[in-house]
Amino acid sequence: MSVNSLLRFGAVCPFLGHTTPQTLGALAKTHGVNNMSSLTTSALRCPMMGPKLAQMAQARAFASVAEPKEVAEIHRSKDIKYDPSQADKCPHAKAAKEAAEKAEREHKLSTSDKAAAFDYQGFYHTELDKKHQDKSYRYFNNINRLAAKFPVAHTSNTTDEVDVWCSNDYLGMSRNPVVLGTMKRTLDRYGAGAGGTRNIAGNGALHLSLENELASLHRKDAALVFSSCYVANDACLATIGSKLPGCIIFSDALNHASMIQGIRHSGAKKVIFKHNDMEDLEAKLALVPKDTPKIIAFESVYSMCGSIAPIEKICDLADKYGAITFLDEVHAVGMYGPSGAGVAEHLDFEANNSTPAAETIKGSVMDRIDIITGTLGKAFGVVGGYIAGSAGLVDVVRSYAPGFIFTTSLPPAVVAGAQASIAYQREYKGDRRLQQINTREVKRQLEELDIPVVPNPSHIIPVLVGDAALAKEASDLLLSKHHIYVQSINYPTVPVGEERLRITPTPGHTTEQMAHLVQSINSVFKQLNLKRTSDWEQMGGRAGVGIPMAEKVSPIWTDAQLGLDDGSAPKRLDAGVKGVIRKEAVTIAEQRLTHLLGAASSSAQLSASA
Amino acid sequence: MSVNSLLRFGAVCPFLGHTTPQTLGALAKTHGVNNMSSLTTSALRCPMMGPKLAQMAQARAFASVAEPKEVAEIHRSKDIKYDPSQADKCPHAKAAKEAAEKAEREHKLSTSDKAAAFDYQGFYHTELDKKHQDKSYRYFNNINRLAAKFPVAHTSNTTDEVDVWCSNDYLGMSRNPVVLGTMKRTLDRYGAGAGGTRNIAGNGALHLSLENELASLHRKDAALVFSSCYVANDACLATIGSKLPGCIIFSDALNHASMIQGIRHSGAKKVIFKHNDMEDLEAKLALVPKDTPKIIAFESVYSMCGSIAPIEKICDLADKYGAITFLDEVHAVGMYGPSGAGVAEHLDFEANNSTPAAETIKGSVMDRIDIITGTLGKAFGVVGGYIAGSAGLVDVVRSYAPGFIFTTSLPPAVVAGAQASIAYQREYKGDRRLQQINTREVKRQLEELDIPVVPNPSHIIPVLVGDAALAKEASDLLLSKHHIYVQSINYPTVPVGEERLRITPTPGHTTEQMAHLVQSINSVFKQLNLKRTSDWEQMGGRAGVGIPMAEKVSPIWTDAQLGLDDGSAPKRLDAGVKGVIRKEAVTIAEQRLTHLLGAASSSAQLSASA
Repeated sequence: MSVNSLLRFGAVCPFLGHTTPQTLGALAKTHGVNNMSSLTTSALRCPMMGPKLAQMAQARAFASVAEPKEVAEIHRSKDIKYDPSQADKCPHAKAAKEAAEKAEREHKLSTSDKAAAFDYQGFYHTELDKKHQDKSYRYFNNINRLAAKFPVAHTSNTTDEVDVWCSNDYLGMSRNPVVLGTMKRTLDRYGAGAGGTRNIAGNGALHLSLENELASLHRKDAALVFSSCYVANDACLATIGSKLPGCIIFSDALNHASMIQGIRHSGAKKVIFKHNDMEDLEAKLALVPKDTPKIIAFESVYSMCGSIAPIEKICDLADKYGAITFLDEVHAVGMYGPSGAGVAEHLDFEANNSTPAAETIKGSVMDRIDIITGTLGKAFGVVGGYIAGSAGLVDVVRSYAPGFIFTTSLPPAVVAGAQASIAYQREYKGDRRLQQINTREVKRQLEELDIPVVPNPSHIIPVLVGDAALAKEASDLLLSKHHIYVQSINYPTVPVGEERLRITPTPGHTTEQMAHLVQSINSVFKQLNLKRTSDWEQMGGRAGVGIPMAEKVSPIWTDAQLGLDDGSAPKRLDAGVKGVIRKEAVTIAEQRLTHLLGAASSSAQLSASA
Repeated sequence: MSVNSLLRFGAVCPFLGHTTPQTLGALAKTHGVNNMSSLTTSALRCPMMGPKLAQMAQARAFASVAEPKEVAEIHRSKDIKYDPSQADKCPHAKAAKEAAEKAEREHKLSTSDKAAAFDYQGFYHTELDKKHQDKSYRYFNNINRLAAKFPVAHTSNTTDEVDVWCSNDYLGMSRNPVVLGTMKRTLDRYGAGAGGTRNIAGNGALHLSLENELASLHRKDAALVFSSCYVANDACLATIGSKLPGCIIFSDALNHASMIQGIRHSGAKKVIFKHNDMEDLEAKLALVPKDTPKIIAFESVYSMCGSIAPIEKICDLADKYGAITFLDEVHAVGMYGPSGAGVAEHLDFEANNSTPAAETIKGSVMDRIDIITGTLGKAFGVVGGYIAGSAGLVDVVRSYAPGFIFTTSLPPAVVAGAQASIAYQREYKGDRRLQQINTREVKRQLEELDIPVVPNPSHIIPVLVGDAALAKEASDLLLSKHHIYVQSINYPTVPVGEERLRITPTPGHTTEQMAHLVQSINSVFKQLNLKRTSDWEQMGGRAGVGIPMAEKVSPIWTDAQLGLDDGSAPKRLDAGVKGVIRKEAVTIAEQRLTHLLGAASSSAQLSASA
């Protein structure tokens, strides 16, 4: 855009006529816009320029610096009545548009073929520079988790082994023989890929079977499987949020990126409420008429801090204000509840434990949640995501979500492996109980050493570091010096100043591995002179650590539920001891698919021990 | 659902009146459905109950246990004429519906608390109604492709087998022993799931190895793997389109849903150009200053009509107007080019064939394309998607795309299987050549019978039907009467009036299966009195069929490239003959991952034949 065409354009419009390139720059600075892109975006909001003008870059650059009240004032002073629908009839807008078009034509004539194209490669480098400069550039560690040595992995060097302490394969199901055996049998029978979308050649009995399993697990009418839970969240929120007329989505401030994207893609109005803050949520719900469609979108377990949502209270508010509830149980499925259906199931532990599978328990938390989303890739150890809910809801998403419709369905072996994993976990509580017992133990040992653990009632152990460079250094030191892999979590995943190491114990970690972890972290804290809990306390606390007079947080799994009261709790593993594989659960999981895969060979059975 | 409403509902419908809860249970068992969820799914297929009733859980639970022939028999015995389009006029369906609606209203009145809330369930039902009414509601066929009997699948009944003629497992790689063997070895060594995002515990040597393979295949600096190519397209276009300041995206009118979503999510301005129309594209590019960032987004092979983009001409225009090119090769990778890199590679067949892998050929079409996207789930037979391009571009997407960053990475076995498949196809041209030879043959036989094939130069055979109900009926008849599965393709995937059967031959289809397909289609055309090519010709043509004076379209694979000139072409399979597995290619594919998986056992080798 030449200075000439800027001036020519500016000259014909009275309120743009006020600006010169110099004042334009100054105005832009005042408005905090520092590049063409944000100018372009904000231009769309200028009522005077109108939608037609907003399409022209020249127009945008100017219009964007005028605030609505400035525009209004200019018009008022010149006694011009402004009406958005009449933008085309506004003499100034019209004249400006014509001048801009003329300038554009002239500009084009002067732009020979050899004029410079935009410097794409330079731009990519600038964008990457930003990441390097704010320390958010990601370097991926090369971690290869070994099925036979779980939770050990080799690094880029196959002989260099490390203990993995940050995987989301929370229960080690990725190496469970019934999962591996089922997947191998499925590969032999149905091949590697599904070969099409669900609508064209990619819908098989295994997909339907998995969806039945999931619907039954969550005591819902129906379920639908997606490539991932990122896709499930995105597709479901975007579809339902855009379909419901005038829908408003109330979103917890700590919601996962996939939900944020789904809400954005829905085009629905978004209202963010403070994390787990029911007063804030209610205040915001109360502002909207009861008959306006609304969705409360939240998670059960928040991945980076381990907090758990007050699900029942959210259901109460949903009832009171006519909202539906969207609950992401990604970090909870397999991990909570008598059958591993998640926190919603856990909250009615006894009722769910004693009621036959698939049956609705009227008024239970599971019943009150409208939309559950979950993953097959964390505690269930495979990959993929899903939603579960009423038949109508699930069918609407099935019928309208492009992200479900127009993509190759998951491979037969993946869906079969996932179903075997779910079936196993529904039968056997031992893995998730031992996971919780190990979590308690690691938290206890860390706290004994004054190492700052963000308090929470879940299975996640966030160790506060509070500085991006130090968190990365701590992670690197653990890997290189102590052969322990714990990824550092930095901005934007957590707020600046709350950088942390996120530790996830599994039932497969031995007593020795736990002791080695705690000693290594202590050593790294010493070496890097990281702040301990008592240091944070002196500073008034941060991220829940060292908060004076803070209430003690109780774990959501009670002693009784873990079997700590009656001695039925599973035992921690000693070095060299293999984890328990429950034979009965293997058999039941295998039988789920016998009608399709035939009887399992004895290989999985042989490696299973009661 | 209360027993009362069940009984009330059952009582008014004559053929449901036959059932009591007890017989319902028995019937359900006979049909192999064991819970409400599968009842719900199968209910949708009951022609009598009609789409409206199918939306009600009550209706579904009952309807699902009646087989179409039972329904037909009940109607016949009562002398009721059944017509799917008249479902609403069926007295029993109508009465049943009204009773159910009354029950629903009564139920609602009794729940006073919810009186003022928005009626979410009612809304879902309305949305589904729309789909039923415009005939775009999708019923998924239950198709289970059998690895050992490729291209045969069983239906919901494991003993009922059909020939699959519409899968996108174009080359049968989903059952190739090197793919299956590699996946099984990987399961044993690295387990089922990746266990985390690429940034946290989910990045292994296998992921990096696959990305190197893909970069080398496309002669680019770098590649990045995603959950699917839907996600790859969406994430890449959304990221680059939103980052580039003031970016304008020029999008082919027939672009896939994933690209449309990516463009929408980018927030960039979108300009649609007429399908493959270079004049239209140039006219639109010429309106924008050369230094404005712009992306031309298009596909090489368009899935539903089989047309191929004029890639070189698009590159010329991109150069002239300062745009970058985004080429979706989803339906082309594995299928075109000397090493299966796609149409861009095919256009410089000899140069690419004689230049060492990975090397850039300056000025070649592959070199001129800025962003390639492809899938691992069609010709490569597994699942997943990717982009390939310059190091800067790929790193920007890696660093900024939430759909890449915040999702569990693909399982080790999936990425290893995909790499083995690509390595195999790079070594062995026989599958894609035989696929093209079979395509030519099926097209020839269909054309000989005056069956309307939409002309195109690719591997896709769109048979024009031109009516949604007839296309579905033709597909249903092929399945039920001829044991052939070809999904009908209706609006919105193709325009109204251009409904079709989309046939995809593979190298695994035998001469007998081809003859059976052609005869069956001919029989269905006779039975349903579908329009032949000559009929369309008399009407002036449609969708490229029967256009007077149309130029003959030549296949992109030349006779010489197929080996038809010198007798080196692969031979069509006779009945009972297994497809060729090229031993040398198996060995090379296995060696790619020996350093991680160890040497392959001889199982794959044993089942491979030169």
